[in-house]
Amino acid sequence: MRTAPPLARYRQEVDEYLRSLVPDRAPQPLYQMVRYHLGWEDAEGRPDHASGKGLRSSLCLLTCEAAGGELRQALPAAAAVELVHNFSLVHDDIQDRDAERHHRPTVWKLWGEAQAINAGDAILALAHLTILRLGDEGVSAPMVFAAARALDERTLEMVEGQTLDIWLEDRLDVGLPGYIEMIEKKTGALFDCALTLGALVAGADSAVIQQLGSIGRTLGTAFQIRDDMLGIWGDVSKTGKPRGADIRRRKKSSPLVYALNDARSGARHELRAIYGKPALDDEDVARVLSCLEDAGAQDYCVRLAAERKESALVALGQLELKPRQAAEFREAAEFLLEREF
Amino acid sequence: MRTAPPLARYRQEVDEYLRSLVPDRAPQPLYQMVRYHLGWEDAEGRPDHASGKGLRSSLCLLTCEAAGGELRQALPAAAAVELVHNFSLVHDDIQDRDAERHHRPTVWKLWGEAQAINAGDAILALAHLTILRLGDEGVSAPMVFAAARALDERTLEMVEGQTLDIWLEDRLDVGLPGYIEMIEKKTGALFDCALTLGALVAGADSAVIQQLGSIGRTLGTAFQIRDDMLGIWGDVSKTGKPRGADIRRRKKSSPLVYALNDARSGARHELRAIYGKPALDDEDVARVLSCLEDAGAQDYCVRLAAERKESALVALGQLELKPRQAAEFREAAEFLLEREF
Repeated sequence: MRTAPPLARYRQEVDEYLRSLVPDRAPQPLYQMVRYHLGWEDAEGRPDHASGKGLRSSLCLLTCEAAGGELRQALPAAAAVELVHNFSLVHDDIQDRDAERHHRPTVWKLWGEAQAINAGDAILALAHLTILRLGDEGVSAPMVFAAARALDERTLEMVEGQTLDIWLEDRLDVGLPGYIEMIEKKTGALFDCALTLGALVAGADSAVIQQLGSIGRTLGTAFQIRDDMLGIWGDVSKTGKPRGADIRRRKKSSPLVYALNDARSGARHELRAIYGKPALDDEDVARVLSCLEDAGAQDYCVRLAAERKESALVALGQLELKPRQAAEFREAAEFLLEREF
Repeated sequence: MRTAPPLARYRQEVDEYLRSLVPDRAPQPLYQMVRYHLGWEDAEGRPDHASGKGLRSSLCLLTCEAAGGELRQALPAAAAVELVHNFSLVHDDIQDRDAERHHRPTVWKLWGEAQAINAGDAILALAHLTILRLGDEGVSAPMVFAAARALDERTLEMVEGQTLDIWLEDRLDVGLPGYIEMIEKKTGALFDCALTLGALVAGADSAVIQQLGSIGRTLGTAFQIRDDMLGIWGDVSKTGKPRGADIRRRKKSSPLVYALNDARSGARHELRAIYGKPALDDEDVARVLSCLEDAGAQDYCVRLAAERKESALVALGQLELKPRQAAEFREAAEFLLEREF
């Protein structure tokens, strides 16, 4: 999978570090599932190269360097964030009944739900073992504690967001503020975590750590809005998801929440009627797409994400960061909002 | 639920400490599920009193006192072990499709599988936040790290055991050594963790910590064998499980593994034939019970568990512990093997 150019150089380093952490031991099939999900092996245990974008870990390392820290010291933090992200994907695929991720069958699809629950649990336990390794890289004990606490608090917040997301599935009365609050937790919290940990390891002031965490959260929210758009209008050859996939599942992602609440749009009532059905067919999906167009949902979401990116970049400009990394940060932020996969 | 007399006095203290940890905040229904599972609330959020036995946390505190430590200092460790145990129960109920626990509907039965996965994930994240609180009780930084690492390593081992357990479900060729290895991980690892953490907080020598951990593991394995017996011959009014419940699910617990491998028993082939069926009816269950009787499976399991308890108590007798707590430890070990619920 491709990565944003400035972030690409971090990906291999994180990947190598991660590979050193996953036990090679039996029992079957626990670590086989973990290695498969992380993209290092195919379903038969043969070498594969299907890793994700590694955005969160790369942003953690970029932040560490931008704040004057040493990349090597932040590796356990970056790897831990990546593991928390991956634990959530394994469980999310079970919850959403998603059969594919990155053009490969999901873990539950291959090994069943019960074993996939175990795979996710093991990855979360590994994330905790990993963050404690910061001490081995010469990070002081109080900083390791702060990092472990930040990781756990953001993980809990991410699970809160995931719970809210599922809870909202059966409700048509969700407004945009409620939706944004949910994605700030579900996606924003772990981006916050990535930047917080990078800044923490770099030894930044607590005010700077907090500002960078908040920038991460804002960018993560923008990233999720872009993700919502790709779930509806994305190119299947790039996203690996069929066009309109999120509509068919009646997922109330940001374009839908906007159109369902847009009082000016006549499409609103039609949308509510369609989303009230127990299952949607091809014709329903086509009608929803047409309602979204009438409501100008795509333009609205582009603006919503762009505003957040801009506010994150303004906040970033007010911090004293290494110029090269600050520039790379801007480039990465642009990528997050222009990506097509 | 009742507790062993010497352990009962620890239960309330752990329960109060745990209540101070679970967030009271929204979002719905995450912490509602957590409070329900921990037995503090009923499904409508009204006060309830349905907590489990708290064995693992009580053993942690008893070990800490036995090794000369202060109970208060070990509370975060005891609470963390109890949370890891409860995270595993919430996920285990989904995996086993168990509709009831302690005579109440399970979390997934009330809120659905997707939300129950979140509830378990949140409890595991809370366990990690909790172990880090050891520092607030004056435990030194290196000891907090050692405790957090022990908790994570044992959690991972427990998930390995859980994975093996499910993997063995579809195999008839599991022998007793393979089965014991599995329960040493699935159940033994967290008992090991409870005693390891109690000894660690008490400041015991590393050799003593290791010996106590190993005693915990042996007792946990005996506890699981007793649990296996209760799943087949237990009194439904006490266990909350219908008689023969584990047979109906074709669970290969210790009595079954023994009888399936007992070369002297003519029942072996009949058992294999019945367990080869896709589903078992009442008559099959009755025949399995009769095969187990022919094979002397109950007596065998009683001996298997008793041997482990004895070896744990011999090892315990070789350590220099506070006499009162050492006596209570013996009493608790007897309870673990005589309990009927």
